[in-house]
Amino acid sequence: MDKLQVALLQLPVVADKDENLTKAALGLREAAGKGARLVVLPEMWTTPYDTAVFADYAEGRTGKTATFLSNMARELEMVIVGGSIPEKDKAGRIYNTAFVFDAQGEPLAYHRKKHLFDIDIAGGQYFRESDVLTPGEESTTFETLGWTFGLGICFDVRFPDQALDMVRQGADCLIYPAAFNPSTGPLHWELLMRARAMDAQSWLLACAPARQTDGGYVSWAHSLVVNPWGTVEHDLGTGAQVRIASLYKESIETVRAQIPIRGIQA
Amino acid sequence: MDKLQVALLQLPVVADKDENLTKAALGLREAAGKGARLVVLPEMWTTPYDTAVFADYAEGRTGKTATFLSNMARELEMVIVGGSIPEKDKAGRIYNTAFVFDAQGEPLAYHRKKHLFDIDIAGGQYFRESDVLTPGEESTTFETLGWTFGLGICFDVRFPDQALDMVRQGADCLIYPAAFNPSTGPLHWELLMRARAMDAQSWLLACAPARQTDGGYVSWAHSLVVNPWGTVEHDLGTGAQVRIASLYKESIETVRAQIPIRGIQA
Repeated sequence: MDKLQVALLQLPVVADKDENLTKAALGLREAAGKGARLVVLPEMWTTPYDTAVFADYAEGRTGKTATFLSNMARELEMVIVGGSIPEKDKAGRIYNTAFVFDAQGEPLAYHRKKHLFDIDIAGGQYFRESDVLTPGEESTTFETLGWTFGLGICFDVRFPDQALDMVRQGADCLIYPAAFNPSTGPLHWELLMRARAMDAQSWLLACAPARQTDGGYVSWAHSLVVNPWGTVEHDLGTGAQVRIASLYKESIETVRAQIPIRGIQA
Repeated sequence: MDKLQVALLQLPVVADKDENLTKAALGLREAAGKGARLVVLPEMWTTPYDTAVFADYAEGRTGKTATFLSNMARELEMVIVGGSIPEKDKAGRIYNTAFVFDAQGEPLAYHRKKHLFDIDIAGGQYFRESDVLTPGEESTTFETLGWTFGLGICFDVRFPDQALDMVRQGADCLIYPAAFNPSTGPLHWELLMRARAMDAQSWLLACAPARQTDGGYVSWAHSLVVNPWGTVEHDLGTGAQVRIASLYKESIETVRAQIPIRGIQA
């Protein structure tokens, strides 16, 4: 279809997993009530963003959070891009993984964050996901509702090659659950998201946790909807909210016709 | 060396080739007098930006303009990245080519624009370089003054793969002689240049002709110096001018240490 209604859930994330699921359920119902056909949740929305606790919050692909997302997708007849959660595999390895369920509640795709967030900004943010997480190995795309989506997680957005992979696989829209911070946010958040949309000539949805200042990792928030010209159509600011946005196939076709860089991109 | 003084010559370009060379000579002398060790000229600075006249202005690699640039480089003991001019090869093919001369006046590199500018913005800019020009086939880097430079021309900047090639070849600084216009300029000029610098974690110099409104192609101008964080350090606006800027190796090392995306970029 040419027009697609989507929603971004800029959720407040707390230490109580059940409370996070409850708030997500409220947001998903609100999004469905407003006509969204596909909803995106933030990165690591069930757990504090803290490498010390990821193992405690980790689940498998049929765990509590996966079951919740599947049930909500089926009930609300919406595609759910379940942000990301810590995923534990049978060998005990932990990944930062996005679970996607189709509008019948069936698993549609999984993306394991390919590029882990290891950063050391002088006088600013220090974080090493690679201390506890295992990286994924694949670029991820999936098809649903007549659209092709590319899916990366947060630090993945710093790698133009991965975005180009998704574009070559036909992505009409790139989705990045993410959680930048007050060091990297003002420097690069909007620039990265706009650049990837511009280069891909596709829509882009970036969904972050709402800003919390309770002493843990501080999310930059500012979830974004960027159009295929690389222009920001929605910036959700810092507070918790559900935002509905309309994506149009026609915009993709227009920019690709007017600025013909595709087909010669490789 | 850690610090490198460079200059951007945002030249006014007119139909009289000799007048363009005379103004370039003035700008080069001014840049040398202010301590620049490397100078960048704009895209197509000897000719109106018009596919109908490129053949008339085209020269070979030992033609009048090449000789001028070589002599100026030797006399002023500066590296000259000669923007670009229409280059005619022995078979009569025309390219949009950057000529680079080292501080002894010897040829150091040539870059033939790899991605020709074919564009059709609804209600805005229409231009088809591919009607008269032949594209180059290579990404281009060169070493001088202890730095490694990557060199692309204008529409080349829309291709992240080409920038990544130059980064993998060790570029500390990307240079794009270019001439955007009032359609694509406000949309993408700064976004592209900042994005390429951010992704490459390198300096970036973009040098355009000054704004002219005499009825021909209107250059967006706004020559830029962008640092390895993707932050604009100099924006030359629209008028003719010579701008001196300082580049630091240390900035490259700092950003690459703090945001470690290199080595895993491929």
